[in-house]
Formats: sequence, structure tokens, C-alpha cells
Amino acid sequence: MDIGLFTANNVWMMICTALVFFMHLGFSLLEIGLTRQKNTINILFKNIFIICTGLILYYFIGFNLMYPGSFNGFFGFAGFGLEAPLLANGSLDLSYNEGYTYWTDFLFQGMFAATAATIVSGAVAERIKLGQFMLFTVLYIAFIYPIVGSWQWGGGFLSTLGGENAGFHDFAGSTLVHSVGGWAALMAIYILGPRIGKFGEDGKPNAIPGHNIPLATAGVLILWLGWFGFNGGSVLSADPASTSIVLVTTCLAGAAGGIGAFILYYIRYKNYDLTMMLNGILGGLVGITAGADLMSPSEAILIGAIAGCVIILGVALIDRLRLDDPVGAVAVHLICGIWGTLAVGIFGAKAGITQFLYQLSGVAIVGLFCSVMAFIILTTIKKASGIRVSTEEEMEGLDIHEHGMDAYADFRMNQH
Amino acid sequence: MDIGLFTANNVWMMICTALVFFMHLGFSLLEIGLTRQKNTINILFKNIFIICTGLILYYFIGFNLMYPGSFNGFFGFAGFGLEAPLLANGSLDLSYNEGYTYWTDFLFQGMFAATAATIVSGAVAERIKLGQFMLFTVLYIAFIYPIVGSWQWGGGFLSTLGGENAGFHDFAGSTLVHSVGGWAALMAIYILGPRIGKFGEDGKPNAIPGHNIPLATAGVLILWLGWFGFNGGSVLSADPASTSIVLVTTCLAGAAGGIGAFILYYIRYKNYDLTMMLNGILGGLVGITAGADLMSPSEAILIGAIAGCVIILGVALIDRLRLDDPVGAVAVHLICGIWGTLAVGIFGAKAGITQFLYQLSGVAIVGLFCSVMAFIILTTIKKASGIRVSTEEEMEGLDIHEHGMDAYADFRMNQH
Amino acid sequence: MDIGLFTANNVWMMICTALVFFMHLGFSLLEIGLTRQKNTINILFKNIFIICTGLILYYFIGFNLMYPGSFNGFFGFAGFGLEAPLLANGSLDLSYNEGYTYWTDFLFQGMFAATAATIVSGAVAERIKLGQFMLFTVLYIAFIYPIVGSWQWGGGFLSTLGGENAGFHDFAGSTLVHSVGGWAALMAIYILGPRIGKFGEDGKPNAIPGHNIPLATAGVLILWLGWFGFNGGSVLSADPASTSIVLVTTCLAGAAGGIGAFILYYIRYKNYDLTMMLNGILGGLVGITAGADLMSPSEAILIGAIAGCVIILGVALIDRLRLDDPVGAVAVHLICGIWGTLAVGIFGAKAGITQFLYQLSGVAIVGLFCSVMAFIILTTIKKASGIRVSTEEEMEGLDIHEHGMDAYADFRMNQH
Repeated sequence: MDIGLFTANNVWMMICTALVFFMHLGFSLLEIGLTRQKNTINILFKNIFIICTGLILYYFIGFNLMYPGSFNGFFGFAGFGLEAPLLANGSLDLSYNEGYTYWTDFLFQGMFAATAATIVSGAVAERIKLGQFMLFTVLYIAFIYPIVGSWQWGGGFLSTLGGENAGFHDFAGSTLVHSVGGWAALMAIYILGPRIGKFGEDGKPNAIPGHNIPLATAGVLILWLGWFGFNGGSVLSADPASTSIVLVTTCLAGAAGGIGAFILYYIRYKNYDLTMMLNGILGGLVGITAGADLMSPSEAILIGAIAGCVIILGVALIDRLRLDDPVGAVAVHLICGIWGTLAVGIFGAKAGITQFLYQLSGVAIVGLFCSVMAFIILTTIKKASGIRVSTEEEMEGLDIHEHGMDAYADFRMNQH
Repeated sequence: MDIGLFTANNVWMMICTALVFFMHLGFSLLEIGLTRQKNTINILFKNIFIICTGLILYYFIGFNLMYPGSFNGFFGFAGFGLEAPLLANGSLDLSYNEGYTYWTDFLFQGMFAATAATIVSGAVAERIKLGQFMLFTVLYIAFIYPIVGSWQWGGGFLSTLGGENAGFHDFAGSTLVHSVGGWAALMAIYILGPRIGKFGEDGKPNAIPGHNIPLATAGVLILWLGWFGFNGGSVLSADPASTSIVLVTTCLAGAAGGIGAFILYYIRYKNYDLTMMLNGILGGLVGITAGADLMSPSEAILIGAIAGCVIILGVALIDRLRLDDPVGAVAVHLICGIWGTLAVGIFGAKAGITQFLYQLSGVAIVGLFCSVMAFIILTTIKKASGIRVSTEEEMEGLDIHEHGMDAYADFRMNQH
Repeated sequence: MDIGLFTANNVWMMICTALVFFMHLGFSLLEIGLTRQKNTINILFKNIFIICTGLILYYFIGFNLMYPGSFNGFFGFAGFGLEAPLLANGSLDLSYNEGYTYWTDFLFQGMFAATAATIVSGAVAERIKLGQFMLFTVLYIAFIYPIVGSWQWGGGFLSTLGGENAGFHDFAGSTLVHSVGGWAALMAIYILGPRIGKFGEDGKPNAIPGHNIPLATAGVLILWLGWFGFNGGSVLSADPASTSIVLVTTCLAGAAGGIGAFILYYIRYKNYDLTMMLNGILGGLVGITAGADLMSPSEAILIGAIAGCVIILGVALIDRLRLDDPVGAVAVHLICGIWGTLAVGIFGAKAGITQFLYQLSGVAIVGLFCSVMAFIILTTIKKASGIRVSTEEEMEGLDIHEHGMDAYADFRMNQH
């Protein structure tokens, strides 16, 4: 082994790990920024809870559920906790992987695990009961996310749909991370129902403006930064050619997503909408995630620009279905996640009808499993204890009721 | 090629790329923090637009305009889009550069491209028409920035002013990035005129306080962090001695800039001014940027401290000229950019009268070209469609008029 | 020397330097978030002053005081400024250390230096005179922090308490950084007295709510990110096995700290307290810092979870002692710093009664020295010029009195 190369690889993977960790700040700021101040503490609490719990659960259960070693391709578990591969002298066996150590592998994957639940957090904001959400999160992170992950990244049946060297392709998780979160978000907002006042008596949606757009914007830029690690680290080494093209396709798709969304929105509504441009960027980033390693720069721009347009249409669709998704999580993570996954069959190095069918199968199988599991968990919780806060609590805000605390104690606020 | 070394080099350059990207959050927060809340959405929209557009334009035009290969030294263009150097087997040719791949090179340079326009954005805040600013941005990023860049970093005539191995020296862009933005900012605020209420009938300047100093402070610290990549990456490899001394000179100059500005301001005005200390840091960072590779730590401290003082004097000068620069962009980026560029002839490894004249020539040539081009573009736009929003819009804020949106919907605001 | 390996090492150390620098934004946001808006500018000013001054002082004095080369183990000084080791040809001697260059070493350590003072800044917020605090900061950073550091990291007597290869163990500074700041914070809040209104006539503590919890939360997540560099860089190379296990123990301890604090608080007070969960994370991170290199993941979780509980008890204890620590700095940095240092004797590779006694001795010696020195400096300042602002200034806020400036000029505020 070239220890210089191995060290450089591992450095890159540790940095990517840090960047993916930092995405949790991005998600937090985006979610509070796009919702009302009276629920700010609640949203922050959920996000902080998720990152803490996610790491601990991934240590105890998730990692060995997602990477069980050789298994039947559907479900395997290599045991609780971690067991690092050691050499006879007790030091860590660096031959584990050419791109990183066992510890780096665990931590990088662990940072991904919490993300799926965070996606749900934004969609259900301002009306879900805290304890019940925490229970859902624990179950979803501990079991659903790693099991789905094992099907592809753990070497399971999705990765070999077409035989040993052919199958579903999801480079960094358009489906395995973003859609896994997105399907649960969709089920949750269906089960929860819309926030009071979101839809008028005529069924028309009312805008409920977010309370801190600067923080939402900061959140998106932090997420974009995090995507350097999310996609760049998914190369699983610092291979110069692979990592650098992935960063190029990622950034170009994000940029094109922002421009696509801005232009389509301007054409349709004659308004320069910042929020839509921000969601367009995220859509572009989610869209390129499945195929960031396969696309040329111009294909990345195309995929991103389409994702930006998909966002505009997706947000309108969610509204028309009378679903209430305060931060646009379903449009960004589910719809653009599907788009990005299918795009692998349309553009880039693997394009073709067979690959497209693999992609479609992956989307469908993961979608079915995640929706059903999320639906079961959420309806069970709902029946057992209720899942939505009281009307009074929703009107007055979850911060006061669940946390006894103001996000902005010194500021004067408008009530709404 | 030592693949371990090459990988480490490329890892460093990718991280620097990410850090320069992150500077756009720093710029955004600084600009909104130092202006009024009623224009927050507008400023954020501009900044997000710039980063998206900047990357896409640099892909289509800028990169090949700035690095045209062998050319006449004044203007060259290697064609639209990117053409990666490939080996016979189709894989990326890593011999492109010892410090990074072709893709990393593009992305790192692309992150720089948008910066110049962002500098302008702060200076013209709160009164420029959005569409017109966007048009200016596109032209400036697509053509002016890369053409000027080609003169030096593309191997053009500035880099060989004194013959093959002697000429203008601008390590990371005191002139090529910061002054390029700064000259346009100066032209723009001259053409636009000051904000309503900035100058009293007696011509005395009134302070128009920024609305969110915590975010402005965060912006400056994020920019400082970004400068690790801006200057550290301008080594164009991870060469241990070169990169680490550059980080030391950069950080010491920034720190000295803050202290210099704070002390001079305290002496002159007997007040502990946070904003001036923040701008002093930025001034120190801009000031060291041209010669970060040539200075000893003590020289870096001196250059930074002087830059900090220059900020205090520069801001006062702009006021006396009855120009209105809400964020101090001209003092920071133009005046300190000039100072830093000239300092290369005064301090450090290349100091000397000949080098000083090269530096002066570079400053003058770039200044002349950028001012004239910015002036032409902006006056043309002004004549064609007007460039300044209506008095009513300026009084009520651009957020409501251009975007139909509040930055802080739940907060009660003072009108002014 | 393997130049690829050396470059990778140095890249890692430079990134860790950048991450530790970024912690200053984390501290700033946390401190302003947990205090009242009327003192925001003041706190930001102090933090920015500290990072600037800290670097400059560490250049002039601190580095050579902390790493004096061979010395008597108690006090040594290698001279003002820096003297880089050069080869005969004038280039930097890379054999200085296998993990980084001389410049990287200076900058990484310099970033640590300012941290101790920043910890004090939070504790004394909202009532200390600015000039006096700045004087204290300069003395503490220039002399106390580096002298204590030399005892262990400079190869002084603490590192050899038990002979050449045995002694006090403090991997990244639970004691040498966090407690050094924590002891000064404790002395300072004792000497200053509580803020007006903090304790009722019956001695019962009143909550004085922080004014911007989103920024406080962002601060904690930024600090956590910074800890990747704080602990990861304390390996002093990019050694793959060592750095990656350190990141794992660090992150798991932080996560467990958050969960531990949240659960204990919920059990005691039946409330979901975000601030306590945030401080629990910080407690876990401080707690693991002394032994991050010695612990298994499960030991790290245990240490972190206990630290999280210690936070809840520590904050209650500070209140009972009628001390006023607005941000919980003593509980986080001092008490958890002590806990983490002692934990090295209880858990992990070095556990044992002898090691425990070394740890106890280190805690006691550093505690004694720092408290006495901080007490002397602070009481001297108090006698010479007073150390606390006037009642009027405290009521109206330090921002207006010391800085003539509002943090949030456009927002309407509640007076309190």
C-alpha cells in the first residue's frame, strides 16, 4: 500500500464527513427560515435530536444493518456495535478499504443516516407532536434507512438487478437518501393534514411566509457546501479524476437548478422569487446526486436545469393535492430524487433503456417499501397517542407549549 | 508521477474550491447585515443569482477566455464549453498540472469568477434595478473578469511586462479579483448616486445603520475562513512550505487589519467600532492577497495593519466625495486592493523600484480598462432603461416591489 | 521523507487549523444567542478582538513561550517573533516535524490560543467593562495560556510527572484549553457578581432568556464542526488510524452528551430544553477532548453521556452558588473539562490508579495556577479602574454606551 496515497484518500473522506455533518446546520436553518417563528425552537430541537440520535443509533444498529457483509441481499445484520478489523498487533487493519479506514467509513455513513429523518422534519413542521416525531425518527433511522441502504450500497439485490455487474445505479443517494426521506415526508403530511389556515374554504392555498429568509438562504448555501462532501465523498476515495468531475457536475447542476427555477417561475408568475431559486438549487443538487459520477458537465447542467423546473411544477402539484409541505421537502427530495435517479437511464455513461428500467425498478421498490413502512409506523403512532398537536398549541406555537421558550425573546413579534 | 502527492495536491485544491465557494455566503451575510431589512431579499437574490450564473457562464465562456492557452497576450478564446484533456483510453489526463486535475482547475477558477460581481453587489445595494444589475453582472463576469485575468494568470502581457520571467505580480488577486470588482463598484455608485437621505442638504453624510450586525460579523468570519482557500489555493498545489506560509501571512494580515482599524478609529473618534474592525480585517485580507507568497510574517502584519488604517481613511474619503457605498466595498476591495498590489513592490521577496513600477502599471492598466468598461456598460444600461429604482420603491424597499416578499415576516419593524 | 505522505499530513493540519479558526464564529454566535440583544455588539466586538489579538500575540510571544524547546519544564522562552528552520539554500526545512511544516504548527497552535479567552468572554458577558476585559485578555493569552501549555505540550513537567514516558495526559486540551479558560471564567464571575435581576431578593435565580436561539444553535453546530479540527488536528499528523478513531470518539461523545443532557433534564424538569441539549453536546465534546485518542467508541459514548448529565447538575450548582454565568461556560468548559481529564484515568487505554493520580494532579496544578493568576489580574484591574459597568449602562445595554450602535437597528425590541 502507498501510505501517502492512502492518507490523502482518508483525509479527503474525513473532510467529506465533516461537510456532510455540517449539512445538518443547513437543514436546520432552511427549515426554521421557511416556517413561523413560533415553532423555531421546536424545529431546532428536532434537528439537534436527529443528529445526536442518528449517530448513536448508527453506531449501535445502523452500520451493521446497512453493511452486513455477505448476505441474502434483502436483510442482514452483522451484530450490535462496531467491530474494527485489527491486525495481530492490535493496530487497525488499513487494508479494510483503499479509500479510508474502518472508522472513517462508519462516520461518513453515519452522517448520511440522520439526513433521511431530517428531510421529514421539515415537511411535518409546525404541527407534529414532538415525542411522537422522535419515536418515528428513531425507528426510521435505526431500521428503514439502513435496510434500504443495504439493498444497494451494502451489495444487496438492487445492485445486482441485472446480474453481477449491472443493476440499479444511485451514486450518492438521490433515491437511497433523498427519496427515502421524501417518501416518509409525503406519507407524513398526508396523515397529518395541512396546517390551520393553509387552505381556504375554497381549497385555495394561502402562503404562510417563512420568518427568516436570510437564515433560510444561509441554510441552502451551507447545504450546497455540504454537497461537496456528500457527492465528493461518495467516490469513497480521493481519486483525483473521479472526485473532481463529481464536484464539477454537482456544482453545475446546483447552479443550473437555481437558474432553471428562477426563470420558469419568472415566466409563469412574473416575480423574482428567492425561495424558489433556493429550492431550485437544492433540486438541482438532489437531481445530480444519483449520477454525479456518470455525467458530463453539459449533461449535469441539463439535469439540474430540469430539476429546477420540476421544483416549480412540483410545489404547485403539492398545493393542488391540498398537501401542506412548509419547506417544499417533497418537491426537492422526493420528486427531484426520482428525476435524478431516472436521469441516470437517460443521460450519461450508462444511459439506455435497460438501465432506465433498472432505475425505474429501484425507484418503485424503494418507494413502495418506504411509503408502506412510514405509513404503518405513522398511523400506528397516530392511533396509539395522536400525532398532531392541539389546535390551541398549533395557534400559539409549539415553542411555548412543548419547550416553554421563545426563539427571539427580545424581539417584538406579529401574531399569526 | 507520485500519485500520493498528486492526490494530496488535488484534495487541497478541492477543499480550497469549497472554501472559496463558501465566501459567497460570507459576502451575502455581510451585505445584508450592513444594509436595511427592507432590501434584504433583493440582496440575497442578487448574490444567489451571481453564484449560479457565474459558474454557468464560466463553464460556457469564462474559463476558455481567461486561460486561452498560447495567445497574443491581450485577448484569446479557446472555444465554448470545456474540453478535458483525455488519454487514449478515455480517462482524464492527470499530467495536465502537477497540482490538480483539469476539472479541479475549472471549478477553483470558476469560484473566483463570481466574486468580482459580488463585490459590486454590496456597493449598489438598496437602489439599483434588479434586472439591470443582473444584465451588468452577466456581462462583467462573462467578459471583463476573464479578459483581465488572462492578461496575468492566463500568461498574458501583464505577466511579462519586464520580460519572460519578470512582470506584474498578483498572487491571488488583490488587483485581478478585488480591484476588478472595486472599480466597477466605484463607477456604479458614481452613476447611481447616493441613497435617499444618505447626505443632508449641507452635504454631510448620515449614517444609515445596518439591520443585522450579527449576520454581518458572521459574514466576515466566513470570508476569513474562505480566504484560507482563496489564498491557500492560489499556490495551485498543496506544496507544504508554500501553502503554510501563505496561510500564516494571510491570517496575520487579517488580524493586523482588524487591530489597525480598531486602533485608528478609536484614536480619531473615541469609539469602539465593530463595523470598522470588521472592514479592517477584510482590508488586511485583501491587502495581503497580492503578495501572500512573498512576505514574511512581520511584513504581513505591517501590510495588514496599514490596510486597516487605509480602511478608516478610505471610508472617510468616499464620504467626502459624496459617494454612497453602503458596505464599504470600494475602501475594502479597491483601495486595499491597490495598496496590497503596490506593497509587493515595497515589501517582501520582490521589493524594488522596478517591481514597484510593474505593480503600478498593473494597477493603472487594470483600473483604466475596468472603469471604462464598467462605465460604458452601466451608462448604456442607464440610458436604455434607467438603472435606479423609483423613489417610492426605494423608500418602501425593494423586497416588496421586486419580490413581493418580506425577509422577516413575523418581526415588527421600524420604518425608515 | 515520503513527500506525498508529508503533503497529505500537512493538508490535514491546515484544514484542521481552518476548522479551529471557524470555532470563533461558533463561540460568537453561541454567546450572543444566549444573552440579551442590548449587549450583542459588545460581545461580538470582544470575540473579534480576541481572535485578532490572539493571533498577533501568539506570533510575538505565545508560540515561543509555549514551545521553548528544551527548558526547565516550568518556564522557558525562545525569543520574540518566529524563527523558521531553514535549509542552507534558504527554503523551509521540512524535517521540522513529520506531520506539518513550522508554519502550519504555528498557525494551528495560534488558533487554539485565543480560545481560552473566548471562553471567559461568554461568562462575563453583559456587565464587564470593555477596555478592562481587553487588557485581561491580552495578559491571559500572552502569558498564562502559553505557560500552562508549555508544562504539557511543550514537554514540561506535567508531561513527565511519572518519569520520561509517563505523566499527565491531555490529548487536545480538556484541561490545557477548556479548563484554563474555565478557571478564569469562574474567577471572573465571582469577582464581577451577577447581572442585575439574575437573583431575586430571596436568592432564587431568574431566567434571563437569550435573544437569538437560532444563532446559538448554529454556534453549537459550528463548534462541533470545529472540533473535527480541534481534536482531529491534535493527532499532529493525518495518520489514518489515529485521526479517524479520534473523529469517531469525538462525534459519538458530542452526540451522547446532547442525549444525556436532554434525558436528564426531561426527567428532572419534564421539559424539552433545547439550550441544555446544546450545552450537553458541548459538554460531551469538552469531555472527550482529553482522551479522544485513547477511548473506544463505547467508552466515548459513556464519557459523553456522563458529561451531558454533568452539565445539567453543573448549571444547577452554579445557580445555587449564586454565580451568574450567562452562557454556562463554567459548566461546559471547566466542569466537563475536569471530568474529561479525570476520565482518562478511569476509561480507555491508560486507565488505572496511577494515571488517575497524574490526571488529578494536572487538574489541581493547572487549576491552582490559573485561578490564582486570573484572580490577581482581575482584582488588580478592579482596584485600578473598576471592572464592572455602571448600573445605568448595564440596564440600557453596553451596545449603546460603549459602541453607540444597535445590533438590530430596524427591529422593534422589548426593553428588559
